[in-house]
Amino acid sequence: MTQIKPGSKIGILGGGQLGRMLAMAASRLGYRCHIFCPDVRSPAFQVASDFTIAEYENEDALLEFASSVDVATYEFENVPARTAEIVSRETLLRPGARALEVSQDRLTEKDFLNDCGVKTAPYMAFQTEEELDAAFKEIGRPSVAKTRRFGYDGKGQLMIKARKDIEGVMGMTSGVPAILEGFVAFDREISVVVARSASGDVAAFPVAENVHTNHILDTSTVPAQISEVVEAKAKVMATRIANALEYVGVMAVEMFVTDSTGEIVVNEIAPRVHNSGHWTIEGAETSQFEQHIRAICDLPLGPTDARGNVVMKNLLGEDILDFEKYLADPKAHYHHYGKQEPREGRKMGHVTWVNAEE
Amino acid sequence: MTQIKPGSKIGILGGGQLGRMLAMAASRLGYRCHIFCPDVRSPAFQVASDFTIAEYENEDALLEFASSVDVATYEFENVPARTAEIVSRETLLRPGARALEVSQDRLTEKDFLNDCGVKTAPYMAFQTEEELDAAFKEIGRPSVAKTRRFGYDGKGQLMIKARKDIEGVMGMTSGVPAILEGFVAFDREISVVVARSASGDVAAFPVAENVHTNHILDTSTVPAQISEVVEAKAKVMATRIANALEYVGVMAVEMFVTDSTGEIVVNEIAPRVHNSGHWTIEGAETSQFEQHIRAICDLPLGPTDARGNVVMKNLLGEDILDFEKYLADPKAHYHHYGKQEPREGRKMGHVTWVNAEE
Repeated sequence: MTQIKPGSKIGILGGGQLGRMLAMAASRLGYRCHIFCPDVRSPAFQVASDFTIAEYENEDALLEFASSVDVATYEFENVPARTAEIVSRETLLRPGARALEVSQDRLTEKDFLNDCGVKTAPYMAFQTEEELDAAFKEIGRPSVAKTRRFGYDGKGQLMIKARKDIEGVMGMTSGVPAILEGFVAFDREISVVVARSASGDVAAFPVAENVHTNHILDTSTVPAQISEVVEAKAKVMATRIANALEYVGVMAVEMFVTDSTGEIVVNEIAPRVHNSGHWTIEGAETSQFEQHIRAICDLPLGPTDARGNVVMKNLLGEDILDFEKYLADPKAHYHHYGKQEPREGRKMGHVTWVNAEE
Repeated sequence: MTQIKPGSKIGILGGGQLGRMLAMAASRLGYRCHIFCPDVRSPAFQVASDFTIAEYENEDALLEFASSVDVATYEFENVPARTAEIVSRETLLRPGARALEVSQDRLTEKDFLNDCGVKTAPYMAFQTEEELDAAFKEIGRPSVAKTRRFGYDGKGQLMIKARKDIEGVMGMTSGVPAILEGFVAFDREISVVVARSASGDVAAFPVAENVHTNHILDTSTVPAQISEVVEAKAKVMATRIANALEYVGVMAVEMFVTDSTGEIVVNEIAPRVHNSGHWTIEGAETSQFEQHIRAICDLPLGPTDARGNVVMKNLLGEDILDFEKYLADPKAHYHHYGKQEPREGRKMGHVTWVNAEE
């Protein structure tokens, strides 16, 4: 496998906070970063040596970007397949196209996960109202209708509690390919952030327990309140998924757990560094961002141990203005993503507490 | 005092590794950084949102730089007085001109330290050969001749062991103002990195014990092998110096210690983040770089506790190429400054081990 040595240049598709934190981690190891993003105000531009402002469909810009770097990666799973293909012509793309293909389509993703021997919610594809009707009969209620592509933070999702909700669903999907998933009655949401290096080494971080509010991650806590057996099972599942994809980089696997049975259902995978892994920056021996850089550059993976009890909380909108409170707290680590407008619900930063209740 | 809120812009004079690590720490808190440096290949440019390539004497460039930022700081003590004056016309300069004035001239520095009630080596100024002769009679041997200005890493210094060495000294100083210092027979070199915020809060990091090789820092180790009394005395001295200067930011005070008596002699002060404080990045609860940003922005200072036993080692020249070894070591944190040419003796990066012998 090709090793990308410190001092080389890394290309990152996407200029949000994930790209920003990747670039910061890469810098410590001496890599220069080139960010590609259509948004003029991308937070990652502020911390990178080079940037390109262009659309993901701009072939010339993509080729120039790709030929200027030694390896390319991305911070979001909705990178168009054609974008990935263009970049791959000129440089290594890690993770590769397969990870994008699987994670961009909920049906492909669910099929892939079941092929891996990992349990998911029951699901059925639909496009027309007749197909939805048939799926609703099969899956039962409550169930959740989701567009197959481009959903995030609860967008493109609708709960079906009764037959009459079907009309609203067709209004949302407007006839685009979708799936109906059985609703999983779970006790906890957890996630495993796992890294697989270009050489095939795999290392999973401790499992995080996540709380979402309005479909947006609110807190991640480590260790998760699950048994050792469930913790081990979750890591094995994530490792199996990473290996099956011949994945290179850091990925996150979101799961539901039922306490009484210890059953784990995989919800979705994200082929990138993940919000539920931000706790690792101060809370683990290696951060998920550095680990991603190590993995795609084929360097040895770093140790993943937690440094104690860790809580990460997202700062949305004007939460970011409470910096004085967090900076005065000796156990808190305040992160501000450099975004100028604190719009409601926008991820502006996060705080991580390490061993705050010692 | 004026608080500079996260999201604001910080100007940094100097684009070396110190400016680079300052910019990286500032980014985590949401600040954008503007680096001013004459060197096109400045490592700090790679991680900053803005940069200006111009000489420190370029008034127009300095004024434009200063008017683009909310506060300015510097990474090296040899910032010309006129440069500081120009920048101060348009923005806050922290630390201020007084710190530069004192630390740029060994005679002013020694006088200032003695006025603070801090002990230094005996010293006497000279310029001509007759004055050196007189100083040599007064200070005795061995003694060290140093130019008053612009010395670093042992440059501009010569040891005098016998009268015959005086000729060589005059060759080095060429008649520029210099001082002759009595040689201090010490057991250890230590340093205190101390922060003083714009509001006057002061926090010192644990004392580091330093080993120099060929006048360049090789390792810093925390805790230093000194008694609690000496540790406390060293911190008090550094605090007294910071207060006497009404200093704002992080500064380092280098000291010599005699084990048998516990006597401390202050060698010199550096009005900036310091190589002997690099261990704080992973080894302390707050890094010296973040602490400097907090201090100059008038944010609460962070906790300075060490996270255990810490050793920092500089990587000079081709040492930087041993990345594989350091990245495979679970206790090591490898830093690469993004410099392209590993010239002999050049500071290319460093490694920090935290609790490596647990």
